[in-house]
Amino acid sequence: MTKKISEWVNKNIKQKNPQHQHAPHKHHKKPFPNKDGGAKMRIIPLGGLEEVGKNITAIEYGNDIILIDCGMSFAGPDMLGVDYIVPDVTYLQQRKHKIRGIIFTHGHLDHIGAAQYVVPKLGNPPLYATKLTAGLLKNRLREFALDKHVKLHEYDERTTLKLGAFEVEFFRVNHSIPDGMGVFVKSPAGTLIHTGDFKFDHSPAIDKPADMQRIAQLGHRGIDVLLIDSTNAIKPGFCKSEKDIADTLEDIISKTKGRLIIASFSSLIGRINQIVNIASRHNRKVFLSGRSMIDNMKLAEDLGYTTYPKGTVRKIGPHAKSLPPSQTIILTTGAQGETLSALTRMAIGEHAHVKIQESDTVIISASPIPGNELAIVNVINNLYRQGAKVITNGDMDIHTSGHAHAEEIKLMHSLIKPRCYVPIHGELYMRMGHAEMMKNVAQSVTMLENNGDILEISKQQGIRKSKQKIPANDILVDGLGFGDIGSKVIQERKVMSTDGVLLLLFRAYEKTKRLVCEPNIISRGFVYVKESQTIASETKQVAKKAFEQVVQNNRNIELKELKRQLTLNINRFIRKRLGREPMIIPIIMYI
Amino acid sequence: MTKKISEWVNKNIKQKNPQHQHAPHKHHKKPFPNKDGGAKMRIIPLGGLEEVGKNITAIEYGNDIILIDCGMSFAGPDMLGVDYIVPDVTYLQQRKHKIRGIIFTHGHLDHIGAAQYVVPKLGNPPLYATKLTAGLLKNRLREFALDKHVKLHEYDERTTLKLGAFEVEFFRVNHSIPDGMGVFVKSPAGTLIHTGDFKFDHSPAIDKPADMQRIAQLGHRGIDVLLIDSTNAIKPGFCKSEKDIADTLEDIISKTKGRLIIASFSSLIGRINQIVNIASRHNRKVFLSGRSMIDNMKLAEDLGYTTYPKGTVRKIGPHAKSLPPSQTIILTTGAQGETLSALTRMAIGEHAHVKIQESDTVIISASPIPGNELAIVNVINNLYRQGAKVITNGDMDIHTSGHAHAEEIKLMHSLIKPRCYVPIHGELYMRMGHAEMMKNVAQSVTMLENNGDILEISKQQGIRKSKQKIPANDILVDGLGFGDIGSKVIQERKVMSTDGVLLLLFRAYEKTKRLVCEPNIISRGFVYVKESQTIASETKQVAKKAFEQVVQNNRNIELKELKRQLTLNINRFIRKRLGREPMIIPIIMYI
Repeated sequence: MTKKISEWVNKNIKQKNPQHQHAPHKHHKKPFPNKDGGAKMRIIPLGGLEEVGKNITAIEYGNDIILIDCGMSFAGPDMLGVDYIVPDVTYLQQRKHKIRGIIFTHGHLDHIGAAQYVVPKLGNPPLYATKLTAGLLKNRLREFALDKHVKLHEYDERTTLKLGAFEVEFFRVNHSIPDGMGVFVKSPAGTLIHTGDFKFDHSPAIDKPADMQRIAQLGHRGIDVLLIDSTNAIKPGFCKSEKDIADTLEDIISKTKGRLIIASFSSLIGRINQIVNIASRHNRKVFLSGRSMIDNMKLAEDLGYTTYPKGTVRKIGPHAKSLPPSQTIILTTGAQGETLSALTRMAIGEHAHVKIQESDTVIISASPIPGNELAIVNVINNLYRQGAKVITNGDMDIHTSGHAHAEEIKLMHSLIKPRCYVPIHGELYMRMGHAEMMKNVAQSVTMLENNGDILEISKQQGIRKSKQKIPANDILVDGLGFGDIGSKVIQERKVMSTDGVLLLLFRAYEKTKRLVCEPNIISRGFVYVKESQTIASETKQVAKKAFEQVVQNNRNIELKELKRQLTLNINRFIRKRLGREPMIIPIIMYI
Repeated sequence: MTKKISEWVNKNIKQKNPQHQHAPHKHHKKPFPNKDGGAKMRIIPLGGLEEVGKNITAIEYGNDIILIDCGMSFAGPDMLGVDYIVPDVTYLQQRKHKIRGIIFTHGHLDHIGAAQYVVPKLGNPPLYATKLTAGLLKNRLREFALDKHVKLHEYDERTTLKLGAFEVEFFRVNHSIPDGMGVFVKSPAGTLIHTGDFKFDHSPAIDKPADMQRIAQLGHRGIDVLLIDSTNAIKPGFCKSEKDIADTLEDIISKTKGRLIIASFSSLIGRINQIVNIASRHNRKVFLSGRSMIDNMKLAEDLGYTTYPKGTVRKIGPHAKSLPPSQTIILTTGAQGETLSALTRMAIGEHAHVKIQESDTVIISASPIPGNELAIVNVINNLYRQGAKVITNGDMDIHTSGHAHAEEIKLMHSLIKPRCYVPIHGELYMRMGHAEMMKNVAQSVTMLENNGDILEISKQQGIRKSKQKIPANDILVDGLGFGDIGSKVIQERKVMSTDGVLLLLFRAYEKTKRLVCEPNIISRGFVYVKESQTIASETKQVAKKAFEQVVQNNRNIELKELKRQLTLNINRFIRKRLGREPMIIPIIMYI
């Protein structure tokens, strides 16, 4: 596989710019600031290469390891019953004495959300985060009763960290949450920059614009490897600025007479801050609905990230009805159509404090995350049914992404001019699209195809992909259990989810192996009871006959083999009769 | 609900054009060509209002009923294990003696795909279809061994049908399958036009352009109600023409050196025909892969719908490898990432005859149908993994929709100028978007919110929505069974799909109600066996204790109540211990 990808890259991308491929960069003054000639720096993304989410990158040099981010990802629809996925840190566990720290680039769950699982496993190494990220991380760890055990340090763009052999510095980027940072790492074997999730916003909401001068300066030092966000690489142009989104929202808010309900992401603190300011300019009060929305805005207020007057924002409750609709904005979670979210509950008339009225306007200030399209459509249909008017990002520019589009990615490349870049953060097709888009730009790419692939930097061998691979499985979290379900369990759930389960109870005399009575049938998720009378009695006959035949052929048959043969027979009958393949569980009791 | 929608329409749409609301149309010469003053024409969409799919509209006048279309819809991801959905025809079954015929507008499954279920239920009424649609319908009915029983008549744009009190005429429209028609219906109570699925294509692939003059003439007769496709109403502008798509495809094909694999819809006969012609111009042979692709193109060839020289197109097989890649195009199904489709099998290296090579270029000439996004992304990632280059509609204009965009919808309205229109074909948000878009155009809208809602036309009362409602449930098809599963079965599947099933076997003495031994546990889809030892033994203890307590409290407890209490107790323990809620099935055997 790996071979194919690199051949594809060679054929389709590298050869387009043969003049750049081997030429050292002009700006690269010290291509290998490497005192320790033999040692390698190893860069290992343990997540974030095969998904959007679960971001975690290990950087190893000699006896030292640092991690950048430690996120979770949400389970796809084929991961039945899985709540979320955390990274496999087996490799790190075996080397936990080497771990000097975990650096968090920003506070989204796909960057901090696996901390409660990973941090204790690695012996509670020190954590480093900016102020807001640290606040969110602390809340997360408190949920899991871990906040007392961790050493959490704040950093900012002026911080330099010495973590074992590593020197670490930071630079501001923009993203859909304030306080996002990119990371510069230097070891004796070389230098790298990790962009984190980034975009360039010249007029962000409450954040400062990404620090281009600083990025250019770091680039000027000579960067061996650039690890760069690829989520939106296949989207053309630039992201819209948060201030432009605010203009559109202000336009809608100023023209709307009735109540406004605005759904967005609870971590979009900058946008929410802007909406509250718009609200107060237009004489509206803002009520927050949804736990994460309330928690995040409380934290943002406490840490000084908001610019609206204290008290402008209230938690939703019975008092929300005391104001006329024209003076009310409800800010809510649920922009992705999540089942239990506040907006979904409003849409089906089950929200405790918000009953949709016919003069309501609902603004969905978000874009669907792939896989959520149908759920969102469902919520929108239901809102229309309740009489509301709905405005989405398809109608007007009321949302912008947090991830750099194509032109912003090129800009980052040009500011840094690395010797080589690795597209990270995103599924393979996004990262291949990144490489494809860059084929006319002078850059050398190394494609790390899968989580656990390793990039090595050393003076002797330069930059190259290792043939080794670190285990990087998905650890599935279901309910309160980490990793106690796996592909077999998921496979069983899949069978039952499509065709149900069919239990057959056989009671037989132990000695003679003769059935005491007809087998009993219990089913769930199979067919309606009222329609299943015929099926049930036919199945019983098939089961009875199968039992008798199998036993007749071999009276000393082992229980396991008997069950296997019964299952085969019954399965064949049901498949032929109904075109279904339920989970069949034969239970045999000897008396 | 209904009240709210109409109030919303009144407030948001109608009042914007008060001058038009009550004024009769100038062109409407005979607003009520109604000899039978008292009788009503009732228009009842039994499907197609709450979904994209399952299109079927009944039109009733006195003792006569005709149907337009009879389609299926695909099940959403929450309809676990359901293969597809067919319409509820209870109302029609009770009136089958009145049914004069079923008219099919075109050959897509969402318009013909429930025929095998509905036609026999209604006593095999005569069917009317254009040549290609009739061919597809015949194939469909043959699959279900029904083709011998039906009376299938072909019509074209010059046909006039007299079906009881109805006079029916037709007009050509464009769509993503050839031979699509709109329908004009006249009864003594009034007139209507049903657009079918339509778009306007001035340069279609093999079809004629939609007949605008004919549409204008029919409109000029005076149309009371226009039932109009809303699928793409919220998309701005016009659809691209099929010929423009062909130009882009020819550009790619002419510049590509290696093998080309093109995935598209098997019913896009016009586009496929164009691709074959392009292929032959560029000295490539075309191999078809995927059963529906092969079947549909055979039918199209047999019926004279193709323009390429006979023999240019071949079925895929071992011989496909005999030609050099530069002379090969493979046309395949699977553009939606369907699990068992040819493209999906190629992407995971399991196609019998096509092994993806590193110089392959895969063109996905389709757009994702909502809900299929993740499956398609998965296929694309896998194609990259195999070394192919992938081009999608996001990269270049290689697909166009079959459904009118906003400007085409306005055009249809202007050609017909009905007294009133009803947005059909599409979920509520699309149809509300249609009404919203039309608010600046002089048209009166009546919103039928749900399947089974009724629009009545009569001389006395004009056009109005009835307060009555016809039952229009979803009939779920799973395997070979029609309607033998329902919401309870789906609910059970949902529980098992997320948390699995847990069986507890209790053996007790009948008289004393004392347990013979510890309860046995069998689980599927719950937790790994190796990790579940502790859970299992804890659960056994809880189950044992629960049994003993319940029985102690009431030695004559009924079996049902005993099971209920055991389930409650075990459920509580598992929820607390693991945060999961599996399907719990206690089985009690008395000895």
